[in-house]
Amino acid sequence: MKHSRLIDALNNCAAHCNYCADACLDEGDIKMMVDCIRTDRTCAEICSATANLLASNYSDVRGMVEQCRDICKKCADVCEKHDHKHCQECADACRKCAEACEDFLS
Amino acid sequence: MKHSRLIDALNNCAAHCNYCADACLDEGDIKMMVDCIRTDRTCAEICSATANLLASNYSDVRGMVEQCRDICKKCADVCEKHDHKHCQECADACRKCAEACEDFLS
Amino acid sequence: MKHSRLIDALNNCAAHCNYCADACLDEGDIKMMVDCIRTDRTCAEICSATANLLASNYSDVRGMVEQCRDICKKCADVCEKHDHKHCQECADACRKCAEACEDFLS
Amino acid sequence: MKHSRLIDALNNCAAHCNYCADACLDEGDIKMMVDCIRTDRTCAEICSATANLLASNYSDVRGMVEQCRDICKKCADVCEKHDHKHCQECADACRKCAEACEDFLS
Repeated sequence: MKHSRLIDALNNCAAHCNYCADACLDEGDIKMMVDCIRTDRTCAEICSATANLLASNYSDVRGMVEQCRDICKKCADVCEKHDHKHCQECADACRKCAEACEDFLS
Repeated sequence: MKHSRLIDALNNCAAHCNYCADACLDEGDIKMMVDCIRTDRTCAEICSATANLLASNYSDVRGMVEQCRDICKKCADVCEKHDHKHCQECADACRKCAEACEDFLS
Repeated sequence: MKHSRLIDALNNCAAHCNYCADACLDEGDIKMMVDCIRTDRTCAEICSATANLLASNYSDVRGMVEQCRDICKKCADVCEKHDHKHCQECADACRKCAEACEDFLS
Repeated sequence: MKHSRLIDALNNCAAHCNYCADACLDEGDIKMMVDCIRTDRTCAEICSATANLLASNYSDVRGMVEQCRDICKKCADVCEKHDHKHCQECADACRKCAEACEDFLS
């Protein structure tokens, strides 16, 4: 299956973002986590849609991969500010996904 | 609910694209419809994800709305070449969605 | 387009659930809203996927429409306990969607 | 991250289904592949939505995992009838996903 490295990175990123967004709801400092939850959800939605698109032979997916790269970088920046394990792991998944997007685009 | 006009246009566009992509499979000239099916599916995925994002207060959705506008225009161009009722109706839904994206962006 | 009433009800329900889940994050009593946010997100995901499926001629969608009906009822029960406008409107969209699912199934 | 084995199996299954549905469009015997394309697309949509749900702490996901198990079995049955490499690999991904669903449910 073509693009499998990028598809795996996108799905892994989306899973971590969805998990982090939900786990933030159980933290004591939940009001501090609102920006993290929103960025997680946005990142999950864009990465999940792009993973579905990459499985197809449609010719022009660069624009969506650029959207993924940008939101992954933003989401990593937001998540890495928090010490929660789910935030740190999410930031790591986002960074790896942003790199996989860069490799695809270059 | 904010952005409800654009969300409705995106969901209507995605529904028509999913329906058109599937209905093309039952046409006799299916080999002629492959480009239409692929563009429909791409458009449906991007519009559906963006509809989900617009319901959130995440600050930066312009990039995704631009992606929607662009794929809606392309999908309308591809669909309107075919006389099938589902293609003509899909082209119409795509044009209306592209306009709603433009209104949002301007 | 076939099943358009149910598809519209599912997309309307998903949009309200996504909006309510996000708007809850801006409420002062956010800890009280966690159950509402989780149920909203689950309902949005199931209804959005089912709206995409109904556009296709795949023969067996009853199981997914039953899942929608069940989560819409649960989500309406959770949302209607809260006085926030987004919760009340979401409960209403969920009830209407549950009814549209019942009509489809009967 | 909890449920990571099932989430990975669901995302892998969805990616193969999306890829197979698209690759079928480039086959010479495309009319023979219509049932495969439709089942692929249905399976991809249900598995992708369920992967997103499993990342959350929402209590009741058994119904959706049962839906995944059932459509994965059906999709494997349809795909394995075809000799195309994408169909055989998709059938394998569907069987593994159905097993991961069974393990989760038992």
